[in-house]
Amino acid sequence: MTEQKTLSKALGVAVLAAAAGSGFPAQADEGMWMPSQLPGIAAQLKQAGFQGDPASLADLTRPPMSAVVSLGGCTASFVSPQGLVVTNHHCAMGAIQLNSTPQDNLIANGFNAATRAQEVSAGPAARVYVTTAFDRITDRILADARGKTGRAYYDAVDAASKAAVAECEQDAGHRCSVANMYYGTDFYLVKQLELQDIRLVYAPPEAIGNYGDEIDNFMWPRHSGDFAFYRAYVGKDGKPAAFSADNVPYQPPAYLAVSTDPVAEGDFAMLAGYPGTTYRHRMALEFAEQVQDTLPSRVDIYGALVETIEKAVDGDAEAQVLYAAQMASLENGLKRAQGELDGLRRSDAVDKRAADEAAMLAWFGRQPGAKAALADVKAAQALVAASHATSDRDTLFGLMRSQTQLLGSAYRLQRLAMERGKPDAQRENGYQQRDEVRIEAGLKQVQRRYDAGVEKAIMAELLRRYRALPADQRIAELDAVFGNDAAAATAALDRIYAGTKLGDADVRLGLLAAEPAAVLASDDALMQVAAKLMPAVLREEEVDKQRAGELLRLRPPYMRGWAGYSAANGKPLYPDANSTLRVSYGKVSSLDPRDGVHYTPLTTVAGIMQKHTGQAPFDAPQPLREAIAKGDFGSTADPVLKTQTVDFMTNLDTTGGNSGSPVLDAKGRLIGLNFDSNWEAVSASWMYDPRYKRAIHVDARYLRWLLAKVYPAPNLLREMNLPAE
Amino acid sequence: MTEQKTLSKALGVAVLAAAAGSGFPAQADEGMWMPSQLPGIAAQLKQAGFQGDPASLADLTRPPMSAVVSLGGCTASFVSPQGLVVTNHHCAMGAIQLNSTPQDNLIANGFNAATRAQEVSAGPAARVYVTTAFDRITDRILADARGKTGRAYYDAVDAASKAAVAECEQDAGHRCSVANMYYGTDFYLVKQLELQDIRLVYAPPEAIGNYGDEIDNFMWPRHSGDFAFYRAYVGKDGKPAAFSADNVPYQPPAYLAVSTDPVAEGDFAMLAGYPGTTYRHRMALEFAEQVQDTLPSRVDIYGALVETIEKAVDGDAEAQVLYAAQMASLENGLKRAQGELDGLRRSDAVDKRAADEAAMLAWFGRQPGAKAALADVKAAQALVAASHATSDRDTLFGLMRSQTQLLGSAYRLQRLAMERGKPDAQRENGYQQRDEVRIEAGLKQVQRRYDAGVEKAIMAELLRRYRALPADQRIAELDAVFGNDAAAATAALDRIYAGTKLGDADVRLGLLAAEPAAVLASDDALMQVAAKLMPAVLREEEVDKQRAGELLRLRPPYMRGWAGYSAANGKPLYPDANSTLRVSYGKVSSLDPRDGVHYTPLTTVAGIMQKHTGQAPFDAPQPLREAIAKGDFGSTADPVLKTQTVDFMTNLDTTGGNSGSPVLDAKGRLIGLNFDSNWEAVSASWMYDPRYKRAIHVDARYLRWLLAKVYPAPNLLREMNLPAE
Repeated sequence: MTEQKTLSKALGVAVLAAAAGSGFPAQADEGMWMPSQLPGIAAQLKQAGFQGDPASLADLTRPPMSAVVSLGGCTASFVSPQGLVVTNHHCAMGAIQLNSTPQDNLIANGFNAATRAQEVSAGPAARVYVTTAFDRITDRILADARGKTGRAYYDAVDAASKAAVAECEQDAGHRCSVANMYYGTDFYLVKQLELQDIRLVYAPPEAIGNYGDEIDNFMWPRHSGDFAFYRAYVGKDGKPAAFSADNVPYQPPAYLAVSTDPVAEGDFAMLAGYPGTTYRHRMALEFAEQVQDTLPSRVDIYGALVETIEKAVDGDAEAQVLYAAQMASLENGLKRAQGELDGLRRSDAVDKRAADEAAMLAWFGRQPGAKAALADVKAAQALVAASHATSDRDTLFGLMRSQTQLLGSAYRLQRLAMERGKPDAQRENGYQQRDEVRIEAGLKQVQRRYDAGVEKAIMAELLRRYRALPADQRIAELDAVFGNDAAAATAALDRIYAGTKLGDADVRLGLLAAEPAAVLASDDALMQVAAKLMPAVLREEEVDKQRAGELLRLRPPYMRGWAGYSAANGKPLYPDANSTLRVSYGKVSSLDPRDGVHYTPLTTVAGIMQKHTGQAPFDAPQPLREAIAKGDFGSTADPVLKTQTVDFMTNLDTTGGNSGSPVLDAKGRLIGLNFDSNWEAVSASWMYDPRYKRAIHVDARYLRWLLAKVYPAPNLLREMNLPAE
Repeated sequence: MTEQKTLSKALGVAVLAAAAGSGFPAQADEGMWMPSQLPGIAAQLKQAGFQGDPASLADLTRPPMSAVVSLGGCTASFVSPQGLVVTNHHCAMGAIQLNSTPQDNLIANGFNAATRAQEVSAGPAARVYVTTAFDRITDRILADARGKTGRAYYDAVDAASKAAVAECEQDAGHRCSVANMYYGTDFYLVKQLELQDIRLVYAPPEAIGNYGDEIDNFMWPRHSGDFAFYRAYVGKDGKPAAFSADNVPYQPPAYLAVSTDPVAEGDFAMLAGYPGTTYRHRMALEFAEQVQDTLPSRVDIYGALVETIEKAVDGDAEAQVLYAAQMASLENGLKRAQGELDGLRRSDAVDKRAADEAAMLAWFGRQPGAKAALADVKAAQALVAASHATSDRDTLFGLMRSQTQLLGSAYRLQRLAMERGKPDAQRENGYQQRDEVRIEAGLKQVQRRYDAGVEKAIMAELLRRYRALPADQRIAELDAVFGNDAAAATAALDRIYAGTKLGDADVRLGLLAAEPAAVLASDDALMQVAAKLMPAVLREEEVDKQRAGELLRLRPPYMRGWAGYSAANGKPLYPDANSTLRVSYGKVSSLDPRDGVHYTPLTTVAGIMQKHTGQAPFDAPQPLREAIAKGDFGSTADPVLKTQTVDFMTNLDTTGGNSGSPVLDAKGRLIGLNFDSNWEAVSASWMYDPRYKRAIHVDARYLRWLLAKVYPAPNLLREMNLPAE
C-alpha cells in the first residue's frame, strides 16, 4: 500500500502527563510521539543521534514542526519561504490527472512549470492545512458527560465537540477538529489554517513517480521516485482564498532545509506526519479477537465473495468488466487481511499482549484506589466481548448493503429520505447535505458496476452464511423478507429483482430528487425491502452507539493503568494514531525478511534498469535511462556505493496517513519522503515488531538528481538553496 | 531445474596437453576440469584453500575420484566400504515410485530400511557406473578420418568409435563409450563397470526431499533435503549381476568420508560429477546467433504454441486435461529460453565472446603456420552460418513432428518400418531394437494426450509461420501436402484428420506390429502424409550429418587457437562438458541477485517453518516440525547460527548432470550434495558469470540431523562412521 490514509475518524488529540516523563521506549524505535512528548524523551532522542534541541520540537505550531502540513489523508512539508510544498506523487495524483488532456498527458509525461505563471491549479478541492493551535480542552468536552453513561455519555461528548468546533471555525479561513487521545482520556482542539489555492509545480512522469505500481506495492527493494511539488497561494491580504490569478505565494511559518549529505545504514532518522489509525493500545481481548476470529473470518468471507463473483461472471465478458473493480477491492482486502493475520501470528501478538496486559493489571491492582478502575476495565472487556459475539452477523448484514449495488442504492435512498426530515446538524454521519454529491455520484455509477445475476449470487451467498449462524443471532426483518432456507431466499431474490426498476439510472436519480415522503412510500420491490430492513439497521446502530459511548467512558481507566505502569517502569507511552501530528525516530535500517534473504537499506538506479521491461509499470522513460547510462550523478551520488541512490528504508514507526511525511536527519534536514511500508509490516497497526517494521522513503538525493539532470528544474533547486547539479 | 541431465550426447573425453599447464583460470572459480588437469592447476587449487595433494585427484580410476559414480543422468558417490551410495532424492525418485504401493506410499512416507534384508530393489533398469579405465585413443579414432571431409569424416569417426566400444565391451559387466573433447580434437575411451543390482536404502518423505517442488525450483533461499541412499550389490563372485537375494554388497575402490565440521561463507569447496553439456567454447558467431536469433525465436514460437493450445482448449475441460502436460512442457521451455536470454544479455555475452575471440584470432594469426588453421576457422564459421540460415524452417518442420501426437506417431511408425529393413547397428539413432519399447509406450500414451481440434490448430499455426518464411526455404513435399495458403492448409488438415484411423490405439499398435512393407503401403491418410514428407526429413538429416562431420574436422583448429592463446596467457583451458567426470572448485558464496537484495549462503530450519503452509509443496511433515520446535540439533548445529542448517550455496561450476554430485571440503570430505542451480545462472551453459553463477547443495549436516533425530537410521550413521547425534 501507499501510506495514504483511507479511513477518517470522527473523533480525535492529548498527552498523559504521567507518561511524558523519562525512561526508554518499550521497543527500540517504536512510537508515534506527540511533539509535546519529545522534551520528555530528550535523553533517548540524543542517544539515538538527534543533534538538535528536543525542546524545539515540542510545539507543533512553531518551527520546525509548523513546516509539516496535512493535505487531508496525506502529509506534506514546506521547503521554501515562498510556499513550495513537497509531497508524494501519489498524493498529487488527483491534481496531475485533473490537468491532463489528450494533448498533454501529465500522468505519462510529468509536469515541470518553468515559471510561477505556468503553475496550474490542483483543483477546487485541493487543500493544505497548517496547524495554528493545539489546545487541551478535556474539561470542556467532558463537563456534561461526567456522571452519565452509555449513549448519553456519547451524545454529551459529541455535542461539546461540535460546539467547540463551531466556535473555533468562527475564525474565517480555518478548519477545526477535536482530537481524542488515549481513547477518551484527553481531548484537544486542533485549529488549522485552510489554504485553498494549491497549484501543481512539478511532477515526474508516472513511470518514475509510481515505478513498479501494484507489482512493487508493499515490496522492497523499491525504485519509485514518489514525489511532486505543490505551491500554496493566498490572497493579497495573506489570507486563505480560492484560486485567483491575482493570488500570491503563501509565506509559511517555517520550511525545511533539504540535506546535501549522504545517507547510510544506521544513520539517525526522524519523521513527522499525520498517521491515521493504530490499535496498539487495544485490550488483550481485542488482540485475541482480531487474530483468532475477525481476520480469519474476513479472509473466509472475502474469499467466498471472490469465488462467488468469479463463478457468477464466468464466461460473461460484460459482467467480468462490470465487477472488475469490486473484485480487485475484495482481493486487495483479502490479501491485506491475510498479511495482517500472518504478521500478527509471526509476532506472537496475542500471547505477547496478554502477558503485557496481565503484568500491567497486576501492578494496577496494587495501586491505591484501583478497585473502581479495575471494575471499569472488566466492564469494558464485557462490552467488547458482547459486541464481538454478534460480529459475524453484523458483518454479513453490513456486506449486504456495501457489496450490492441495487440493494445498497435502495438502502441509501431510503436512509437519505429519512435523514432529510431532520435539521442538517442532527443527520446521521454520511447523510448530511455535504454528503449528497457523493451519494449522487454513487447512484450514477451503479450502471457501470451492476449485473442482476451477480448481485443475486452475492446475496444468496451472504444469506446462506447468515442462516448458518446460531438461532439467537437471527434478524427478524431479514427472515421476514428472505425466509428461512435456500429455496425461500432464491424465490425472494428472483421476485424482488424482477420487481425493481432501480437498475434504471433515471429511476434512481428520480428517487434522489423526490420528496422524502414519496421515497418512503415507493412501491418498488427493492425500495420496500430496504424499508422493511431499516428498523434492524437502526436498532443495530443504536446498540453500537450505546456501546461506543460506554467504551468512551470505560476505556480511560484502562489507559490510566497503562500510563501509570509505563511511568513506573520508566517507559513513556504514546497515544494510538488518530490523524494528528506525530513524530517517530529511529534509523536507516536493513531488513532480514526471511531465512536466507537480506535487504540492503538503499537501492540504486541499477535496480531501475534491472526491472525495466519497456512495459508498464516497468517502463523507465528514455531520458531517465539515458541519464543512468551516462552515469553523471554529480553531487547526488552516494560516496560509498559510487552511484545514484533511489529509495531507502528506515525502522520509523508509520501507518496509513504518513504518505508524504518528511524524513529528517540528525540535524532536522530533509533526507527523504515517506511513501510506503513493507509487506512484512502490514500488521504494525496492531503491533510494532522491530524485526519486521520498516518504512520506505524516496531518497532526497534521487529527487535532487532528477531535478538537476533528468527533467531539469533549476529554478526549484535555486529556490530550495540546493546545488544546480 | 534440478541438475539431472536430460540430454545425452552420442559422442564424448581428453585434455589438451598445451592447456594443462600453469597460470590462472580466465574467471575466478570458473571451470569444469578433467581430473587429469588438476595437477597442472595445483597452485590455484592450493591458493583457493585445497589442503590435499592435487596430484592425488588426477586419476579418475583411483581413490578418491573412483568414489564418484554415474547413475546415468545423475551423479552419486560411495560413502561406505559396503557399497552405500548417496545421491539426490530426485535421482532416486524412480526407485521410490516403483516400490510405492497404495498401502505404503514411499513418496509420501519416505523409506528407511532397518536392516540390509529390508533394502528393496531400485528396479531392473537402475545402474551404478564405476569408471575403471579412461584412455586417450585419438589416433585410433581419427586414423581413417584423416584426409576425408564431410559425411565421410563423420562416418569414419563413428565407425572407429563403434569398433572401439564393441571391443571394450567384450569385457563382461562393462559399458564403454568414446568421449569427444574440445569438439573433435581428442577422443577418450571410457570403460565403466555396470553394477545392476541397486537397492533403495533410505529416502526422506517427498515433503522433505522435494520441499518447495516447482515453486522453489531454481530458487534461493532453498530448504530441500534432496538426498537418498542406495546400496550397490554384486554376485558372490564380486562381479556385476542382476538382482538376486543371494547377492552381496559391492566393495567400492574408494568411498568418501562425511565431514563433521561446520560450513561457512568463504570456505573452500569442490565438486566432482558428470555435467552434461555446455557451450562455453562455441564460436562468437554462435553466441550471437543464440542471443539475437535462436532464443528470441524460441520464445516467440513457444509462446505462440502456448497461446494456440490455450485458445483451442478454451471451454473444453477434457481437452484441457489432455494437453496439460504438453502445455507445462512448452511453458517450461519458454521460461527457460527467456531466462537464458535474459542472463546472456545481463552478462553481455555476445560482445564479450566477440572481443575475446577477436583477441585470440589476432594472436593465432601471428603464430607460424596458422594460415591453414585460420582458413578452417573461416570455413567452420561459414558452415555454422549456413546451418543457421534455415534454422527457423528446420525448427518449424521439427515441431510438426514433436508437438503433434498423430502426425508424430505416423512419422515414427513410417520411420521405424524403414529402419527395420537395416541391420540393427546401421539403424538411425532412436530407431534401434533397444528403442522399440520406448516407441511403443509413446504410441500407447497418445490416447491421453490427443484432441483432433487442438492438433489441427497447432499444425495450422506452424504452417502459417512456415509460409511466412522466404520462398527459397520452402520444402516442396510440405507444400505438396498442405498447399500454399491458409485455406488450402485448413482444407488439407480437415481432409487428413478425417481420413486417419491413427486416433485408435489398436490401429497404431497394429502398425507397430505389422511387417515393414505393410506399414509403408498403408492407405491411412496420415500415414501417407508421413510417407510423402519422409524424403524431406531424410534430406535434412543428410545435410545435418554432412555439416556435423565437416565441423568435427573444422572445429579442432579453432580449439587449438584457444589452447595456444590460453597457454600463452598462462591460463589453462577446460573442455566443454560432455557427461564425463569433471571437477570444479570454488567457495561457499552468498549472492547479490539484484539491487537491494543479498542472499546469505546458508539456510536454516527456520525457513522451513516460514514456508510451511500445510499444503504441498510446503507441507513439512509433523516429525520434522516437532524436531525443529524441540531445537535439539546436537553435533549438527551450526556454531555461528546456533541452529540447524538445511542447504547452502557455492560458486561451483555445474550444469545438468551434476545432480547428486558430492561437494567436498578442503580435506576432501563430503559436506553436501549438489542438486540445483539458481535462476540467475540459467545462462551458465554458455557463459560463467561470477556475479551470478551459483550451485545449490543440501548440507550434509541436515542429512546427518535427519538420520540422527527425525527419521532415525543409526545403522547408516554407524556405517558412515558418523556420530549418533
